[in-house]
Amino acid sequence: MKLIGISGALRRASTNTGLLRALQALLPPGIAMDIATLHGIPPFDEDLIAASGKPDVVTALAEKIRQADGIIIATPEYQFSVPGVLKNANDWLSTCNAPFKWKRTGVVGASAGAMAGTARAQYHLRQNLQALQAIVMPRPEIMIVHNELKFDADGNLTDAETRERLHKWLEAFLEWVEKKP
Amino acid sequence: MKLIGISGALRRASTNTGLLRALQALLPPGIAMDIATLHGIPPFDEDLIAASGKPDVVTALAEKIRQADGIIIATPEYQFSVPGVLKNANDWLSTCNAPFKWKRTGVVGASAGAMAGTARAQYHLRQNLQALQAIVMPRPEIMIVHNELKFDADGNLTDAETRERLHKWLEAFLEWVEKKP
Amino acid sequence: MKLIGISGALRRASTNTGLLRALQALLPPGIAMDIATLHGIPPFDEDLIAASGKPDVVTALAEKIRQADGIIIATPEYQFSVPGVLKNANDWLSTCNAPFKWKRTGVVGASAGAMAGTARAQYHLRQNLQALQAIVMPRPEIMIVHNELKFDADGNLTDAETRERLHKWLEAFLEWVEKKP
Amino acid sequence: MKLIGISGALRRASTNTGLLRALQALLPPGIAMDIATLHGIPPFDEDLIAASGKPDVVTALAEKIRQADGIIIATPEYQFSVPGVLKNANDWLSTCNAPFKWKRTGVVGASAGAMAGTARAQYHLRQNLQALQAIVMPRPEIMIVHNELKFDADGNLTDAETRERLHKWLEAFLEWVEKKP
Repeated sequence: MKLIGISGALRRASTNTGLLRALQALLPPGIAMDIATLHGIPPFDEDLIAASGKPDVVTALAEKIRQADGIIIATPEYQFSVPGVLKNANDWLSTCNAPFKWKRTGVVGASAGAMAGTARAQYHLRQNLQALQAIVMPRPEIMIVHNELKFDADGNLTDAETRERLHKWLEAFLEWVEKKP
Repeated sequence: MKLIGISGALRRASTNTGLLRALQALLPPGIAMDIATLHGIPPFDEDLIAASGKPDVVTALAEKIRQADGIIIATPEYQFSVPGVLKNANDWLSTCNAPFKWKRTGVVGASAGAMAGTARAQYHLRQNLQALQAIVMPRPEIMIVHNELKFDADGNLTDAETRERLHKWLEAFLEWVEKKP
Repeated sequence: MKLIGISGALRRASTNTGLLRALQALLPPGIAMDIATLHGIPPFDEDLIAASGKPDVVTALAEKIRQADGIIIATPEYQFSVPGVLKNANDWLSTCNAPFKWKRTGVVGASAGAMAGTARAQYHLRQNLQALQAIVMPRPEIMIVHNELKFDADGNLTDAETRERLHKWLEAFLEWVEKKP
Repeated sequence: MKLIGISGALRRASTNTGLLRALQALLPPGIAMDIATLHGIPPFDEDLIAASGKPDVVTALAEKIRQADGIIIATPEYQFSVPGVLKNANDWLSTCNAPFKWKRTGVVGASAGAMAGTARAQYHLRQNLQALQAIVMPRPEIMIVHNELKFDADGNLTDAETRERLHKWLEAFLEWVEKKP
């Protein structure tokens, strides 16, 4: 089984990219996960496509998604929704022959403070993924609050209880990808 | 009264930018509306801010919003949500001392085909504008279907019935801005 | 294959119940669909459960869902969301050992006028169905505008073009139920 | 100033009704708040209205809302959305000459466990209140997690830190109602 993790954050020390690394470290033998970030994807503009086609960084990401058995997206929450850069990447990907179509997908996220834990971002992302025809695992969900207490300054997970929750989530997700209920 | 219209579309012949032009032409004497587009705004990245500060194009847009009595945002719908470029602009604007705070705001949109007329994008945008503390007019709403039949190839509105609806919407919006119910 | 259709409307002449009848008439031989309505389900109240248990009408509906291979929910839109009676039914069903869990499900809807065609209701319903762990077909979607022109006074579909769209949607849905992508 | 609090929960020991009581106790002198519950409101059914008109309990609630300067709705979260009984009440209220129109409104909620704190319910409620033309305070928000630790068995708030947050929220809400920004 081959997975791809996509981080919706550009910040180098992002806890959401760190969340994907933590999941990566929990994978059983024989299952690999590449982590992709969205650096270098320009603002989506149909005039730009008409003038110069699609950027290589977009078609390469589409191809990675197409090759994967399962996709995990880690999303920060900005202003009660997904980061613009994550939505922008999906705007581009929607022009690449439906790479998400019927792909088993999972959504996770971590945010600062006590409220909501990226819930608002995750439901907007799920509606967006519906358009892209992904088959997103309904439950369990991962919405991590107080990431400022659970990750170090480099964005590495340090909280054991969160790691345990991630482990359980990952087991459910691997079943979701493998058994295709 | 001074308004600003913001188009969520980059495409030169966009019908959503055309929607703002149509509203501009319907304004009564003494009320002006500038139209802003989101060209040149880079992907939001906190590392970039730390390294080189905020782009001038962002602070200039924030200032225009701050100066306005009312804001109209015209949003296309991409993949069941707002364009990434529009969300990305709002991610930047959220770092500019709350330019939307308690500003009277309206949301409009036009899309192709028979379904939904940007409804999905508009509700995601409204949730995003809530975070930015805008006071968005609840009703009436403008969701234009079949923009391919109602605008010309340059994105100019050609449909009289739609113009009439826009006129009524604009009257309600001007009351919203002026009377601040 | 056995399907169940659930109408979110109580009104006898509802076009949403009519939508389910139209789908029923389009089913190929060997596939049956019962239509359930939500009459007689009391307001969900945990004190009521503690005092007198669950109503038979609820456990019977849960059992029908459990027996079905696929579920189609037709939802009206009231005030930018699902009818309270539909949400209330799902509140009850959530106490009945997860009848929706991993069930292949489809969502359709019809509304009056030109705007949105139950889009707002459908996305709220989809989020609710996520909680119930249904696996809802992402696309295609059915959002019928101007039901006042397409159904007769008894709620029967009269519009040939809409019937054709329903037919295509139904083919996609039957594939969704059968192949379980 | 006269307020009305509406609890979306029927359960006698509901922490959401308790949340309204806690807010009531924090009101400054000269400001009163009645608390209404939704007991006795039947499932919304247009055939029922045609046969026997609107229930008194509905018209009485509509009148209370019309008399109020400000409305606070406390919503539980059931299955990733508002309780059906709350949505059902609003379905009825939408037939009573727009009692919510341009009324200053606030939304709060409490839920069990660590995730989301009624966030999912609150955004669905906000979209519903948009349809009803309420003017809902964008921020601050109150989403209380772990209500099982912060309220007693009768639904009374016992947590001092939460009371402090409620106090700040209430100050912002009273300004929202009084100054009508």
